[in-house]
Amino acid sequence: MWKNCVRVARRLGRSAVLHSDPRVSCCGIIRGLNPAATCGPLWNSMTWLSQFTRSKDYALPNSSWSQGMMDLYSRFLEMCKDGKWKRIPSYNNTSDHIPESLKVVSEKERKKTRLFLRNMDTEGVGFEYAMFLNPSEKRMVCLFQPGPYLEGPPGFAHGGSIAAMIDSTVGGCAIFIAGRVMTANLSINYKSPIPLGSVVLVDSKVDHIEGRKVFLSCQVKSIDGQTLHAEATALFIQLDSTKYLQQQVSSQ
Amino acid sequence: MWKNCVRVARRLGRSAVLHSDPRVSCCGIIRGLNPAATCGPLWNSMTWLSQFTRSKDYALPNSSWSQGMMDLYSRFLEMCKDGKWKRIPSYNNTSDHIPESLKVVSEKERKKTRLFLRNMDTEGVGFEYAMFLNPSEKRMVCLFQPGPYLEGPPGFAHGGSIAAMIDSTVGGCAIFIAGRVMTANLSINYKSPIPLGSVVLVDSKVDHIEGRKVFLSCQVKSIDGQTLHAEATALFIQLDSTKYLQQQVSSQ
Repeated sequence: MWKNCVRVARRLGRSAVLHSDPRVSCCGIIRGLNPAATCGPLWNSMTWLSQFTRSKDYALPNSSWSQGMMDLYSRFLEMCKDGKWKRIPSYNNTSDHIPESLKVVSEKERKKTRLFLRNMDTEGVGFEYAMFLNPSEKRMVCLFQPGPYLEGPPGFAHGGSIAAMIDSTVGGCAIFIAGRVMTANLSINYKSPIPLGSVVLVDSKVDHIEGRKVFLSCQVKSIDGQTLHAEATALFIQLDSTKYLQQQVSSQ
Repeated sequence: MWKNCVRVARRLGRSAVLHSDPRVSCCGIIRGLNPAATCGPLWNSMTWLSQFTRSKDYALPNSSWSQGMMDLYSRFLEMCKDGKWKRIPSYNNTSDHIPESLKVVSEKERKKTRLFLRNMDTEGVGFEYAMFLNPSEKRMVCLFQPGPYLEGPPGFAHGGSIAAMIDSTVGGCAIFIAGRVMTANLSINYKSPIPLGSVVLVDSKVDHIEGRKVFLSCQVKSIDGQTLHAEATALFIQLDSTKYLQQQVSSQ
């Protein structure tokens, strides 16, 4: 799979390989950038991400958030006070999650694309979410309020939108805990539909790491914890470093 | 899981249960409606779907489609001539995939929501796709051109968008072959990233049916078939009929 990534990247040109960090799946949270390598231990200072960009942070409350979403957000924000939990900012372009020093995509090119889960202009109609990280528990939670433009069955969130939210949450968790990773497998058991406009908690954690394999699990539950909407497992492959990619390309 | 669906639906009111067809995942192609029950053998007359709505069909070529997408579309359209393959229309609201006689959602309510994969106003920026069904092979293919608003890693489609496209394709296949179904599991192996703007073929088929369990597999490949981008398996549960749901609700 790694070789496939390199092959595709080569097709797009070497600079794209070295800087655009092509991988199979992306959560939009500096996937492919090893924060520990550039910023020291990631969870000791979460100011690192906000320093990378002056773009709008979409993981902050807006008028579309329901009371349930606000209450849950406030609860996690409170839990951030002792430093065990960290709020994760979120932008609408992958490029905004990458430090300025590592960016090579021009502003013009940047404006042409949008991060998939932040691609709507109107607040509240698509993915409304905010993530919080607990590094010591190797856990990432995501408060998720699916909007009316994520419809599958009438009145309920599309299974694909649930898959996208799970992918982003477990991906974010894997990156913050293990550094550079790429998705190898995502398996979801759907248990109960999620009504549009409701609020659910996507709760993921790294279960164990075997060599370069990072195994995660995830549950999607209602706020009161009484309804299990979905559960998932994921496997990510840990990448060594950007140098490894450079070596791979050079050796082709 | 079935009972969970009923429970959730009950929370939303009985009329929502009986008519809005709540299920866990939806491909947007009359999921939950058993076409055979209402229209006779589905694949003998594909005029059935177009008769249900006067809405815009988004599965037709537009100016954002690349030459590769157009060529592939023309190839499948040609294969439709002998009746073995059928083009599947696609609308931007789940309600438009349901026959008028079964609709209870008001026009006002209908306008508030969008089918997840058809939720963008601008052509070409999101999911551009067209599906074709081969009933005798129990196979559904989807020509997919991911737009720049589906970005994950810079320049590549988000893993969640790939999951959504696979979910919709296997879901559509399951419905057309087995009637009323709901997603139980979706497992995806990511093999190689998909560049934004490229065209891939999502090829799914029903492998076997055991009782009410419908097992499907799916591959996502480049047009030339040389690159395997992802492969997936899916399990859907076949539902008996709308009457079964009514009985379940009545007995609660």
